Amino acid sequence: MLCRPDFESLSLLEFEILLLSDITKVWLTPLPKNSQWIKPYRMHYIENGRRKSRDIFKILDSVLVIVYNVSRKKLIYVRQFRPAVYHSITTGNSLQIQKGEVDLVKFPPELGFTLEPIAGVVDKDKSLADIAREEVCEECGYDVPTDCLEFVMNFRSGVGASSSTITMFYCEVCDAQKVSEGGGIENEVIQVVDLSINDARGLVQTGSTINSGSSTVIATLWFLCNKI
Amino acid sequence: MLCRPDFESLSLLEFEILLLSDITKVWLTPLPKNSQWIKPYRMHYIENGRRKSRDIFKILDSVLVIVYNVSRKKLIYVRQFRPAVYHSITTGNSLQIQKGEVDLVKFPPELGFTLEPIAGVVDKDKSLADIAREEVCEECGYDVPTDCLEFVMNFRSGVGASSSTITMFYCEVCDAQKVSEGGGIENEVIQVVDLSINDARGLVQTGSTINSGSSTVIATLWFLCNKI
Repeated sequence: MLCRPDFESLSLLEFEILLLSDITKVWLTPLPKNSQWIKPYRMHYIENGRRKSRDIFKILDSVLVIVYNVSRKKLIYVRQFRPAVYHSITTGNSLQIQKGEVDLVKFPPELGFTLEPIAGVVDKDKSLADIAREEVCEECGYDVPTDCLEFVMNFRSGVGASSSTITMFYCEVCDAQKVSEGGGIENEVIQVVDLSINDARGLVQTGSTINSGSSTVIATLWFLCNKI
Repeated sequence: MLCRPDFESLSLLEFEILLLSDITKVWLTPLPKNSQWIKPYRMHYIENGRRKSRDIFKILDSVLVIVYNVSRKKLIYVRQFRPAVYHSITTGNSLQIQKGEVDLVKFPPELGFTLEPIAGVVDKDKSLADIAREEVCEECGYDVPTDCLEFVMNFRSGVGASSSTITMFYCEVCDAQKVSEGGGIENEVIQVVDLSINDARGLVQTGSTINSGSSTVIATLWFLCNKI
């Protein structure tokens, strides 16, 4: 019998490099009606004469960029605190909402950090390639021409409770294109992490528990399938 | 410049096999507070002394099974209507909620159909492998022993607006294990679709637009990377 994965027992060693982010308090309030990021609702429909319904919410589209540094043969990922991941781990497989402040001793904020490819939400009136180029520069500090972004594929972020379009690009960079440390803009606290091809292969090896989203798995598998 | 993908222009030929599902009316209402499927809220936190917030919602964990029929060398997928996908396509990259009935002439329900691996939500007190085995039987009609399910990896369904754990299995089946047509239980309208390895490779080839979720991409890439 396979039990539910225990993300709480992930070794803290894995998070030693995350000390640049210090989270000291976490709490929840109801979703405001004017949220600019998610819109929940119930969809009703008649299928083969039967009335059905499904609870869903709308989110915005996003871009995703697999970045490979050819000078050093490293794949470029970013680490950051993800509130949705942290809450998912602290509440397990239930829809219970925590009251009051979250116990940071019982649930260290490090549990909410993920390792992801470069990505960003489509919230401005620019081409997807231009948005992707901006994210590469802001998050990991490489300045690349837009026409160096190879379109890989469009797919969906989900199909059950929500869905949006993800447009995935591939981009090769070299050390000479590094113009800043990256790390995000404004309030973002993002850490750039370079992985060797072998380390990336280990990330998606059979038996893994990856505390990151499906984009990490897709980007890594696609690279290993198509570029090695 | 790469433009936003136009899912509306997907060839209807692709959907000819979906006539088993007839959707005649679609409309939306606000999310009830007692939803058993999603819980929206705003998470607040202090990071490096700065107060931040993020709008998120909680969803349940799920299992995912890559099913390969070794008798016929076919990968087994399922097609079904996904309200979240349909709404995402009809509203594009905005959070606008449609008023009244959705115009089914302008937006044919076929736009909301996806091609996915076998999957199911973790909403019962059984082991993940047992839930996965049940889904294989209910959705595509193969009766396989639980110990034939190979654990592949755990990852997350998302990191931005929501996150839950996805536990992915691989399962080889043969024609002798086919005990029913599949198609789901109760009100489910699910169509089993077998793809050759070449067709599956085409699904995730560079340049594709896949009107399905990340699980379809991950399952297909993982199979091509590890079993071919």
